[in-house]
Amino acid sequence: MKKAVVLCSGGLDSSTVMAIAKAEGYDLYALSFEYGQRHRIEMESAARIARHFGAREHRVVRLDLAQFGGSALTGPLGVPKDRSPDEMAHGIPVTYVPARNTIFLAFALAWAEVIEAEAIFIGVNALDYSGYPDCRPEFVEAFENLARLATRSGIENRIKLAIQTPLIRMSKREIVLKGADLGVPFHLTHSCYDPTPAGKACGRCDSCRLRKKGFSEAGVADPIAYDAAGE
Amino acid sequence: MKKAVVLCSGGLDSSTVMAIAKAEGYDLYALSFEYGQRHRIEMESAARIARHFGAREHRVVRLDLAQFGGSALTGPLGVPKDRSPDEMAHGIPVTYVPARNTIFLAFALAWAEVIEAEAIFIGVNALDYSGYPDCRPEFVEAFENLARLATRSGIENRIKLAIQTPLIRMSKREIVLKGADLGVPFHLTHSCYDPTPAGKACGRCDSCRLRKKGFSEAGVADPIAYDAAGE
Repeated sequence: MKKAVVLCSGGLDSSTVMAIAKAEGYDLYALSFEYGQRHRIEMESAARIARHFGAREHRVVRLDLAQFGGSALTGPLGVPKDRSPDEMAHGIPVTYVPARNTIFLAFALAWAEVIEAEAIFIGVNALDYSGYPDCRPEFVEAFENLARLATRSGIENRIKLAIQTPLIRMSKREIVLKGADLGVPFHLTHSCYDPTPAGKACGRCDSCRLRKKGFSEAGVADPIAYDAAGE
Repeated sequence: MKKAVVLCSGGLDSSTVMAIAKAEGYDLYALSFEYGQRHRIEMESAARIARHFGAREHRVVRLDLAQFGGSALTGPLGVPKDRSPDEMAHGIPVTYVPARNTIFLAFALAWAEVIEAEAIFIGVNALDYSGYPDCRPEFVEAFENLARLATRSGIENRIKLAIQTPLIRMSKREIVLKGADLGVPFHLTHSCYDPTPAGKACGRCDSCRLRKKGFSEAGVADPIAYDAAGE
């Protein structure tokens, strides 16, 4: 059975990606990162999602990205709230974590090489997104090129590893519809950058706003709990 | 002053690279990795070398690469000994750590982005080397291409980050001569994959053999201590 490493944050996008990889017949190897982000609810969601889809394994890599600073997700800067789609469309916000997807994909590559996976799935999206440079198609293509040169299986020409980004050209609406179609357990997912201490989504960060927009436009009910202030 | 992140293992190659970066006028930001390799002597050497060259900072990233397996350097497999240059020239040995340089460079990229460095220096070598896929010029070029697409400064076209590999076409002999010329404190460096509990180099692993060959051909005395069995 063909194998895939699937990056899994427990969010809407990566959970839909995992459903897609499963529907395509891959044996799933879920990979998550604890990287000094503000909350660990993400990890609980990731574990539940990996279990739900029957992943063969779920590994969590612990990294200290906060030591390099440069992001509101790992440092003392505040997470911006209530930004409009227009504001999100311009420039790179402070929630950007330097080189994060490069680092995540590098670890996925290490695992993919050891288990001889044919694909790495990642839920990057270049349409309804926050302007991160490492979510763009040209970044993904450059990593795929690198991966084939970086590995033993690449050098020996045995496995042509693919970086699969099934969501890259989809709107949030389309992602919600795709997820609904494939039976993604939306109630187990978690998207908020800045949840309340009780674990409720703030409803106001870029990630919450994009999620709510997607569910609303898809005409699908979002089953997760939002903080009253963000309703 | 222009800044460079310099990958620093405390070995002959990366120490010579640091000397070169300093000679080229860079402000040095030394970066080391504790990645489940068999010994921590490497980290002590790295710290001494960074101090010697007056690095502005020296950071150590702790990673668990052993969790993915696949290498004699991080797992229970033995380190091969007494291999001839001919044996080393063919195939990829068990000391290869999957995706290691991709992961190292990804972290260097994160730091380079935050401090706005113009260069990342790495001591890879494609001549007197162990056949690792991620030491080849085409790998380095692919990473440089990736780096320019992956980052905020790349997207904004402010900094054209270079991956500098001054040793890539040099023989070990030439590296020793270059290091001697630039005053590398060879006595502080450490190259062995499998040192004795007392910290002596084994003299028999690929890394020791390449080092000894380099010093011998350069006509320079190697000041480090070798285990009697490896003399």
